[in-house]
Order: sequence, then C-alpha cells, then structure tokens
Amino acid sequence: MKIGIAQQNYIIGDFEGNLAQIKSAIDTAYKQQADILLFPEMSVCGYPSYDLNHYSEFVARSFQFVEKIADYTKNKLAVVVGAPNTNTLAKDKPYNSAYFIADGDIQQIVHKIHLSKREVFNEKEYYSSTNTTKLIQYKGKKFLLHIGDDRKNILLSDSSEINKILNMKPDFILNISATPFEQDSYREKRNYIKRLAVENKLPVFYCNTYGAQVPIIFDGGSMVVNADGAIFEEMSFFKEEIRIFDLEKISKSGNNENLQPVENIALVHDALVLGIKDFFLKSGFRKAVLGLSGGVDSALVLVLAVKALGAENVLSVLMPSEYSSDHSVKDALDLVKNLNSPHQIVPIHSTFETFNNTLAPIFEGKKQDVTEENLQARIRGVLLMAISNKLSHIVLNSSNKSEVAVGYGTLYGDTCGALAAIADLYKTQIYELCKYINREQEIIPHHILVKSPSAELSPNQKDSDSLPPYDILDEVLCLYIENNLSEEQILLHGYDTETVKKIIGLVRRAEFKRHQSVPVLKISKRSFVETHFPLVKRNF
Amino acid sequence: MKIGIAQQNYIIGDFEGNLAQIKSAIDTAYKQQADILLFPEMSVCGYPSYDLNHYSEFVARSFQFVEKIADYTKNKLAVVVGAPNTNTLAKDKPYNSAYFIADGDIQQIVHKIHLSKREVFNEKEYYSSTNTTKLIQYKGKKFLLHIGDDRKNILLSDSSEINKILNMKPDFILNISATPFEQDSYREKRNYIKRLAVENKLPVFYCNTYGAQVPIIFDGGSMVVNADGAIFEEMSFFKEEIRIFDLEKISKSGNNENLQPVENIALVHDALVLGIKDFFLKSGFRKAVLGLSGGVDSALVLVLAVKALGAENVLSVLMPSEYSSDHSVKDALDLVKNLNSPHQIVPIHSTFETFNNTLAPIFEGKKQDVTEENLQARIRGVLLMAISNKLSHIVLNSSNKSEVAVGYGTLYGDTCGALAAIADLYKTQIYELCKYINREQEIIPHHILVKSPSAELSPNQKDSDSLPPYDILDEVLCLYIENNLSEEQILLHGYDTETVKKIIGLVRRAEFKRHQSVPVLKISKRSFVETHFPLVKRNF
Repeated sequence: MKIGIAQQNYIIGDFEGNLAQIKSAIDTAYKQQADILLFPEMSVCGYPSYDLNHYSEFVARSFQFVEKIADYTKNKLAVVVGAPNTNTLAKDKPYNSAYFIADGDIQQIVHKIHLSKREVFNEKEYYSSTNTTKLIQYKGKKFLLHIGDDRKNILLSDSSEINKILNMKPDFILNISATPFEQDSYREKRNYIKRLAVENKLPVFYCNTYGAQVPIIFDGGSMVVNADGAIFEEMSFFKEEIRIFDLEKISKSGNNENLQPVENIALVHDALVLGIKDFFLKSGFRKAVLGLSGGVDSALVLVLAVKALGAENVLSVLMPSEYSSDHSVKDALDLVKNLNSPHQIVPIHSTFETFNNTLAPIFEGKKQDVTEENLQARIRGVLLMAISNKLSHIVLNSSNKSEVAVGYGTLYGDTCGALAAIADLYKTQIYELCKYINREQEIIPHHILVKSPSAELSPNQKDSDSLPPYDILDEVLCLYIENNLSEEQILLHGYDTETVKKIIGLVRRAEFKRHQSVPVLKISKRSFVETHFPLVKRNF
Repeated sequence: MKIGIAQQNYIIGDFEGNLAQIKSAIDTAYKQQADILLFPEMSVCGYPSYDLNHYSEFVARSFQFVEKIADYTKNKLAVVVGAPNTNTLAKDKPYNSAYFIADGDIQQIVHKIHLSKREVFNEKEYYSSTNTTKLIQYKGKKFLLHIGDDRKNILLSDSSEINKILNMKPDFILNISATPFEQDSYREKRNYIKRLAVENKLPVFYCNTYGAQVPIIFDGGSMVVNADGAIFEEMSFFKEEIRIFDLEKISKSGNNENLQPVENIALVHDALVLGIKDFFLKSGFRKAVLGLSGGVDSALVLVLAVKALGAENVLSVLMPSEYSSDHSVKDALDLVKNLNSPHQIVPIHSTFETFNNTLAPIFEGKKQDVTEENLQARIRGVLLMAISNKLSHIVLNSSNKSEVAVGYGTLYGDTCGALAAIADLYKTQIYELCKYINREQEIIPHHILVKSPSAELSPNQKDSDSLPPYDILDEVLCLYIENNLSEEQILLHGYDTETVKKIIGLVRRAEFKRHQSVPVLKISKRSFVETHFPLVKRNF
C-alpha cells in the first residue's frame, strides 16, 4: 500500500483556493499511484478559524467542499481531509474532524479527541470533543485515524475505547495535525511522533500543515516513523511538499533515521520570512512600508521583508529629527543601497515644531519631558500611516520582544503597524539573526550591529540609560516569560535583586501597551500573544 | 446563628489595601455579633488576576495575607475569604480556594470544583480544579462551602462526592463568587441562586464582589435565599455593603421575595460610572482628558467621566478642523458649560497643513482621499496623547460598539486612549443612555441628540453615507455578535440580504483594528473582548 502526505499551506475561509490546492495534490499523488493521501488538520477551511466555527455558514460551507473533494477523488484514490463537522447537540461548537473519503464517498468521520491545550488555539472555546474513535479498513489494511498533537494522544491504549481498537491489530496510524512552529519545537515534534509509534508499536504517518496564520506559523516537517520509532522520512520545513511512501518499505526499514540537518536560527529566519510573505499574500497586499531609523530592529525587518516581498515592494521611510545622529541616516542609506530597495526621506522637524506651537498655550510653563520624545515617535507613526493609506502599502512594525516586555516604546508611535515581524525576538536574538543574515556577505552594514542601541528622541539618548544591559534584561525576561519562573526562582540564578524586581515590575506595568499591540509573528514558546497580566493592579 | 455578607471592591495585587478593607468589615460584623462573615471569591488578592497565578510569589503572598486575616479574627468570629492555594502537583496552576477561618486558624480549605466557563476569566488556563469537597461544622451547624457561579454547581447532588455530603444533612450553603455584570444578568443570577437553594432544599448565602477590574465590572447584588427558593434579601448593586442575617429568621421566612426594583438602563449607567471611577482609582490617576467633538459619543463619555471623577478632573479638548461644522463647537461648548467642566480649543488646521506639505513630495499627483480623513483623526490622537503625557491626564476613548464592529474609525486616531468607556454599547444604546441621563434635566444639549451622526472628516460627511441606518445595523450586529446567529438565521428575521452580508463582511474584516483596540468596559453578554475572528482570511 502507498500512503501519501500532502504538506500544504491554506488560507482561512478560502474554500475555492484550498480546494484547488487539494485537487492538485490529488492529481500528483494519483499519478504516483498512492492509495491514500493525507491532508492536514482543517485543510478544507484553513486553521485556526476561531469564532468562524460558531457560525453555521462556515461549517456548512466546509462540508460542501468536503463533498466536492469526495467527488473529485472518485476512481482515483482515498484521501483524508480535515474540516469542522456539526455537533447537533451544540450547534455553535462543531467537532474538529477528519474525513476518510474513498470511492468518491465520505466513508468515515473521526472527531478530535484531545482538543489542543495551546492557548493560541483555545480549541475548547470553538470545538466539541469526543472520546470515541473507529478502526478504519481500506484495501485489506486497518488503521487508526487521529487528529492533533496533544501529548495525551501518545498512550493511545490509555483510553479503553482506543484500547479496544488496538486489540483489533491495526496496521498503522494516520495523524493529521496543525502543529505550530516554536524555537526548537522540531525536537519535541520528533519525540512526540516517535513515541506515538513506539508505544503503540505501529508506523505513524504524520501530516502537518505549513504557512503563517498570524500570529501562528506552521512549519510542516511532516514525518513517517516506523513501528520501531525510527524516523523513516522527515519532510522539509516551511515548504509545500507532496510525498508518497510505500508501507512495506517503511515496515522493513531498520533503525537508521533519516533526519534533515536543522539549525535553529535558520528555522527562525525562514519562519519570519514566510510569516511576512503569507501575511501579505493571504490578505491580498503586495507592498510594505516601514520607518527605517538606522537602528538594528528596523534594519532586520527591512531585510526580512525584502526577502519575503521583493526589494521593489518594500519602501523605507527615513524620518530624521533634530536628535537623529548623522550616522543613523548614513547607516539606513547604506542598507537600502545594499538591498537596492526604494526609500524616502521625510524629516519631521516642521511637523514637530507645528505641534509644539499648537500645544504651547496648554503647555505654558511646563518643561520639556517625555511628551516631546513621544511626540516625535507619534509623528512618525502618523506619517507612515498616511503613506500606507495613500499608496496602499502596509506598515511593518519594528518592535522587539525586549521593548514590548518592558514597555520601552511609544504607544501609537513605535507600536503602530499591521504586523510586528520581529516582536517575538529579544534584542539579543535580533543581533543573532542579523549575524546569520550577514553570514556570507555584509547585507546589514556592520556599523548598525556595533553601535549602542538608541531611540534618538532626546540628545545623546541611549537605551542603557533607562534599561539594564540587554544581555541581562533578555535572560531575566526569558526566565520570567518563557519559563514562568517566580521572582524568587530567578534570583537563584544570581541576578541582582533590584534589577530583577525592576524588570518584573516593568513587565507587569507595560500590559496596557501590549493590550493595544500590533499582531505578532509568534516564534517562541510563549509570546506576548499568550500572556495576560491584569490591566489595572498594584505592584506587590 | 448569624451569618454576614461583606460585598466589597478590591484591587488586584493590593494585599495591604484589601486586608484593610477585610479587617474593617470584620470589625463591623463583630459588633453586630455575626458568627460567620463571608467575603467574595479571591477577596484577598483581587480577581481576575490572570497570569499572576502562574508566579509563586503571588500565591505565596496571598497565603501570607490569609494568615494575617486568621490572626485578626481571633476571639472575634469565623470568616470565609477567597485566595489561590498552591497545587503541589501543578505549581503554576494553584486552586481557586475558599478558606474557612475560625478561632484564629485556617480550619478548612475548599477548592473550586467547576472553573468558570466565561472566556473573560479563562480560568482553566490559570487554576487547577478538584472534584472533592468537605462538610464544614461550626457552632453546631453543618454547611457546604462552594465557590463560583457555574451552572454545573446547581445540581450539587449530581456529583457523588457532594451527594455523600448532602446525605449528612447540612444546614445551609455558603457561596462566594465573582459574578460579572452584563445587561440583564441580574435575572440569571437570581434564578441561579434560587435554583441552587430549591434543588438542594437549603438556604443559600451568596456573596458577590463589586467593582471594575477592566474589562469586567462586578455588580454585587449578593443574596440570601431560603430553602424554598425565595429571595430573603438582595443587596444593592455596585456598592459596598456589609449585612448580617439571622439564620433562624431566614429559615422561617415564607415565599415573599424581597426584590429591589431594577431598571436595566440604570444598571448600565451605574456600571459605566463605576467602571471609569475604578479604572482611575485603582491605577492611581485622578484626571482624564478626552476629545469633545460635539457628537453624541464623546458627549456621553464626558458626562459619565464627570460623574465618576468630578467635573474639575475631566478636561475636554475641542479640536476643530476645516470640516467641522459650527454647531459642533457650539454643542460641545454648551455641554461643558452645563457640566461646568474645563475645556481647551486646539484647532488642527496648521498641523494638518504641515503634514500635507511634508507629504506633498511623496503624494504628488495623487488625489485627496481617505488618507486626509484619517490624518485629521490621527492628529487629534497625537494631540490628546501629548496633553496626556504633559499633564498626566488619562485619555478616555469615545468609540461605540457599532463603530468598533464594522471598523468605522481611524486606527491610532479614534481608537486611541487608555479606556474605552462606551465601546460595548451600540449606537442606539448610546442614545438610550443619553436620554436616561437627561431624564430630569437637559445635561446633554438636545441638538447633540437630534442631529445626524457624522465623523466630520470631509465636506458634509454623514455616517449614513457609508453605513446602514444605525437601527438596522445595531439589530443585525446584536444578532451576529451577542447571539452568534449565522447569516442564514439573521436573514430569517427579514433583513435585506445585501445589508446583512455587508455588515457581516465588515465585522470580519475589522478584526485588525479591534486587535489593537483600547481596553473596554464590558457590559454586554458578548463584548469584543470575547470575539476572535482570524486576522488574515478570505471572506467566503
């Protein structure tokens, strides 16, 4: 028997487009004489579709398209596709289902048992779950079909229902999933699929989706693992791939694992480029605009955007103020020259002056303070948004995770845009990624990478005037955010008490800024999409 | 036996402040010879504390303060307080617990069984749950103590564990909760507590918190219901109240219910005033600023803010442009005169002109369009934020739910601010509330209530140029958002197909604006805090 895996990238709600992709994979697999072809979780409608599941038109339309797929497979092959399925007892919570289609008909519908615990999916809000499953028979083989990558799935025999089915000696397990990318998540995924195989003593065919559904980026890396738990094949990351596997060959394969070489920083790079690309493609935009300050953050966003959209489609706007250093403009110009991407210089002096004059009667007798710093940042925000409106360019935001964590940024100034491409990377990771980008040739000018970070909103300002050094800040933030460590536990790592208290206090206080933040591309275990500190509270 | 209910308003993380309030209620109840005094769910630390529960310092500090309360009760009376309690098996997910304290010691700790299903609380993310409970004995009486208002609690005898305890014939049920206000929710709450009493044939003492924890407003309305399901006493809404009840009297009370008269619009009014008041009080600010356009939305926000903070603490800024009508300025000035609140007039002509000049080289050859409309709104946003920064006034946002739903507002312009006081009220509800405010005397000038709504960003613009009439729009929105009705179901109500499709399309598309929206005061069954449409998708 030949089993195929179609690792594809869908658009949520784009039933026609997704159908066209699915048909094309069916054609490919049919030519290669596949018997069964797997598509990822929710392949028909795209995932995660959140509130759309509450509305019956979405579920009904999904079913309509499952039927179209069934028609299309007739006389070709069997397929497994994912789509919601109405729960007649809870109409606003359909099941997250896998449809086994053969001979042009839906033969079986299997529902997801363990809804995802990932907060970004919040599946319990949208889907009903079940604890029953079925053994499916096809062309003399028996198999278990299940959905998702919940750890609870691993020991299938924990469930008496599934135990019954395992006793019927299935030949393999088919798993269709939508597993999101996170740094180093490929290891966990490999381990998960291997355990699923080993502990049930069955080969596993794991079909994952790829592509960005902001804030989530799915990474593909679909896998076939034999009954001994050896990876027979791991498909590529962040790419469409359709592969057909011979069940007999897999069963006979020994313990030699077929693993692709993986470098974490390269995955992060590819994830972000795909994230930007998909955001534009899927929302129907082609062109981006961003404020290019001469600093490292906007430099990185520009490079990633150029890779995603093409140099000609990314407009950099340099908006120097009286506090901007000469090297900022020069560094920014050097970068756009390296990239051969368009730019505009729009100084903000006169707008700044007009605002100050307009506000002078109200501000009479008050000293210059953070107001004027924020004002400059907000003028830049207004200019970018105006350019966005007039030229139909989408504003890319350049905030990083360290800034977002501690609230070091001006609301409606630094925080404006449609997509925060690097807001899930700490400042130290920003530098690391820049070095990766420059690994073969200097794309990002060296000077951008060596100068001290500065917002340049007041004379000789440096980030280090207000914040702990980024290496310390980022380590403490990572312990607090990613690892959920308490203040006490973080102090055990040997950091200075005052610094740790200051950082934690800043993180908690900055919630009001994060509440209004730009959509982020999530690449960490815990992004700020998944944190919720109370908006109003006392520090304790 | 005398049982007291302390209906109080806490600040999240303000352990000292909450302790002081709790002590003061203990003193009051002790003087009135109460035997047991109830405090609401999570009274020690404030609720909902979201991610803070993941950090052991928060849970540890909560426990410390429970012990302080225990010390304080010695030789006085027994109390029930709410606080998280460490789950040694899942340290980042404590229990949501009730502490029964008597004779100066913690006698029993009971954990919440059914975690709240309300999405705004997302309790499963923060708390462990249990399915065991205990019968508590005190001064010759036996009682069940439980937490929260999940419907699953009603038929206590559904759980075999609780059944055992009910067989031991308790004398009453104590319930401590944090039940949020929603329009008409008082009815549901009454029914819930009454059923809890009737179905278990026991008197119920229900202690609810009150006060705003943005986005949620708790309404109090604590209750005592006798074993026949008659409300013996319902405490007031949105107010502190400490009441002592005689158990024997309640048991003897018949079926005469003691219900306070309730008018929904009055509750909404009181909820919003308290919401604004608490937001400022709890975050340590005193003064507000808002843009007063002469339209009905900002007029309403101003009136509510004046009621919450005092006229002298709310600065109105009039920011006319060349498209502002004369009556806008006049109407706004009439209103501030009625309220005797301060105002400033800051015309935006010159800033608008400077921006246009600055952008002229980039915009060469392009026609005037929505860019210039948005620019005006964003200039106003920048001005308000600058005033906020310089004068430490907090910006109140004036968006309404109809606008937020369909995205009729400029990002970073109309959408700026720290608190969206009326963003959970549809436009038609805005008018209703204005009429309520004017019920005895004209506070909001009549002309504001009768003129056609307009953003005044281009010549002779009216909202009705771009949107369906508000009465239709709001009805359809309510069916779609509050009632989760599908397009097909909404059409059954007889609305025009094109209009319904247009509205639903706008709602789905506007998610990118709502993603960056200002914190809202939730007063409806389903606010936009609780909706999640995919950010990137195709309309289908």
